[in-house]
Amino acid sequence: MTSANPILVHALRGGIVESMHRGAVAVLDATGAVHTALGDIDRPIFPRSAVKVLQALPLVASGAAERWGLTDAELALACASHGGEPRHADTAAAMLAKAGVDVGALECGAHWPYHDGSIKALAAAGTSPSALHNNCSGKHAGFVCLGCHRAEERGQARRGFLSGYVRPEHAVMQEVTAALEATTGHPLAGAARGTDGCSIPTYAIPLRALALAFARVGTGQGLSDAHARAARRLRAAVAAAPDMVAGTGRFDSRVMAALGERVFCKVGAEGVYCAALPELGLGVAVKMDDGNTARAVEVAMAALIERLLPLAGEAATLLASLSDVRLVNWNGIEVGRLQAAPALAAG
Amino acid sequence: MTSANPILVHALRGGIVESMHRGAVAVLDATGAVHTALGDIDRPIFPRSAVKVLQALPLVASGAAERWGLTDAELALACASHGGEPRHADTAAAMLAKAGVDVGALECGAHWPYHDGSIKALAAAGTSPSALHNNCSGKHAGFVCLGCHRAEERGQARRGFLSGYVRPEHAVMQEVTAALEATTGHPLAGAARGTDGCSIPTYAIPLRALALAFARVGTGQGLSDAHARAARRLRAAVAAAPDMVAGTGRFDSRVMAALGERVFCKVGAEGVYCAALPELGLGVAVKMDDGNTARAVEVAMAALIERLLPLAGEAATLLASLSDVRLVNWNGIEVGRLQAAPALAAG
Repeated sequence: MTSANPILVHALRGGIVESMHRGAVAVLDATGAVHTALGDIDRPIFPRSAVKVLQALPLVASGAAERWGLTDAELALACASHGGEPRHADTAAAMLAKAGVDVGALECGAHWPYHDGSIKALAAAGTSPSALHNNCSGKHAGFVCLGCHRAEERGQARRGFLSGYVRPEHAVMQEVTAALEATTGHPLAGAARGTDGCSIPTYAIPLRALALAFARVGTGQGLSDAHARAARRLRAAVAAAPDMVAGTGRFDSRVMAALGERVFCKVGAEGVYCAALPELGLGVAVKMDDGNTARAVEVAMAALIERLLPLAGEAATLLASLSDVRLVNWNGIEVGRLQAAPALAAG
Repeated sequence: MTSANPILVHALRGGIVESMHRGAVAVLDATGAVHTALGDIDRPIFPRSAVKVLQALPLVASGAAERWGLTDAELALACASHGGEPRHADTAAAMLAKAGVDVGALECGAHWPYHDGSIKALAAAGTSPSALHNNCSGKHAGFVCLGCHRAEERGQARRGFLSGYVRPEHAVMQEVTAALEATTGHPLAGAARGTDGCSIPTYAIPLRALALAFARVGTGQGLSDAHARAARRLRAAVAAAPDMVAGTGRFDSRVMAALGERVFCKVGAEGVYCAALPELGLGVAVKMDDGNTARAVEVAMAALIERLLPLAGEAATLLASLSDVRLVNWNGIEVGRLQAAPALAAG
C-alpha cells in the first residue's frame, strides 16, 4: 500500500476529532516551480468541474463570445456549477437564445436545483426541472455557443453540427480538450478518461499540472495570446458576476464577491478545488482522497487562501468563518467545528 | 502521526480509483473474542444513531412499551433514523398520543424530511416540517414514552417531569446512558461526550465495545435478563416493520426486509454502522475515518454482511447490488462504481 496523504481537515465534536479528511495540495507558479506540495501531487485525478474555466477558454478565444455578445453574467455562468436558481436558469436560456437555439440543444441532462429554496419553489409550483437547472447548464450553453459559431463559420446547420457535442470525438469537445491539454501541459492522449455527471469526458490530470494551469490562467504566462486574453476576460467576468458561478450562500460566490479578481476559485465534484491567485502568480489544486466536496475541500481551500494571501477586514473575517466552520444541530446548538488540520493551517 | 486505517471502499470512474474511503471494522462475539479487526478498533468514536437500539432498551425493559401498548411499528420507529415520510411522522405522533402528550413534548428540533418525495410534498402543500419529521422523532417519542411511564410511577406531572429530557443529567437520559454502559461494558464516566444532531449526548466508545454490545443484542449473552428480553423484542419489532427503521429505498429497510431477523443493522451519522448477526453470534461495528455515511459505510456494511452470512436468492442479489453500486449520471449513463476494497471484500 502506498503511504497515505496527510490529514487536511478535522471534524471536531465533544472535544475530540470525530472524522478526518486526507488529501493532497499543489501550489505552483507559472514556470512550474513548486511553492507548496502536500501529499502525492503526481497521481492523476479527475478534476471534474474545477476546470470549467479552462474548458470555457475556446468560447472566448474562438470569437464565439463576441459573436453572440455574451455578457459578464453569461461568461461567469459558462464557468459555473450553479445552484439552479431562477436567475441561473434564465441566464443559460438567454445564452442559448443569443446563439439561435433553445434548451433542446443542451445534452447535460436535467436535475433538481442544488439550491434548496429553488427545489421547494419548483415543487410548490408543481413543475419539474429542465436541463437549464442542471448545475452545468452554463458550461453547456457555452459549448453550444461555441458550436453555433463554428457551424456558422462552416455554413452548417446549427442543430446538426451540435448533435453529440458531449462526445470526446466531437469537434466542440476536441477544442475543449485541446485547451485543457495546452493549459495544463499534460498530454491527454494516454490519460484515463471518465464520463462526468453532465456526460462530457473528464481526463485524469495530476494536481501538479492543474496548479500550473491555474498559475498560467492567473498570469497569462505560458499561455497562447488567445488563451491569455480569454483567461483575463473570464476572470474579469466572474469577478463582476460572482453570484453566477455558484449562487446564494455558496463558497465560490462568497469568496469572489469579497476578493474580486484577487482569487479565482472553482470547486469540482469528488473533493477537487482549483484556484488562481494572480497577485502572487500562483495556481492551487486540491483533491480530497475521500471525494468530500460538501465540507472538507471548502475548508481546505479557505485555509490555503488564508495561508497564501494577505487579507484584512471583511475578507479576513469571511475566510476565517470558512476555514473554521461552526456545526450546529437541529436546535441551533453548536455541536462541533470543521477546521484545517495542522498540515494545512496558516503558519 | 499514527498509521492510517485501511482503505475499505473505492469509488471508481474511467477505469481508475477516483476516491477512496478509509476506516476501521470490528467483528466480535458475545464473549469479547475478536473475529475480525481492520484498522484501529480501540480508538473511541461517537456511535451517533447507530446505537439507537441500545438507547431503546429501557423503553421496553422498564415496562413503558407494555404500559402504552406500543406496536411493532412503533418500537421499530424508536430504533429508527427515518425519512420523515408521512407514515413515520404519523407513527411518532401515535406513540406520543398513547403516552398522553403531543409533538410539543419532543426536544429533537424540526428539520425537512430526508425523503425527497416528502420534502416536495410538504413544499407543494405550502407547509413546513415539525419535530415529527425529524429523523430521530421515533427515538425521542420512545424517550418520552419512557419518561411518561416514570412520571406516572412517581405520581408526577408528565410535562414537568419530561422537560429537559435530552440533557445528560435528566433521569430519562441517565437510564439511556446506563443501558449503553451496561451493553458495551465501556465506562462512560470519563468518556468524551458530544451533542448529537437531535441534542442528546453521544459518548465516545471504541468499535471493539460497540461490536461486543451488538453481539450481546443478537444473542442475549452478557445482558441482564431485562435487557436480553428487550433486545429480543426490539429485534423482532424491526424485522416485522423494517420500513419504519429507515424508509423508502433506504439501506437498513431493504436489508432487513430481505433478511428478517438474520440481520439487525443500523446506520449512524459520520460514517458509523453497527449490526448484530444472531445466527453467527457476532456483532459488527464500522467507522469510516472521513465520516461518509451517504455512500461509503453502506458499501462497507453490505460487503461485511456478504462476507459473514451465507446468502442465496433475492437476498444475495440485493446485497451484491449494495456492495458494488452503479453510479449513473444525470443522463442515466453508468459513469462509475462504488466497491468494497480488497481489505474488505468477501474472501
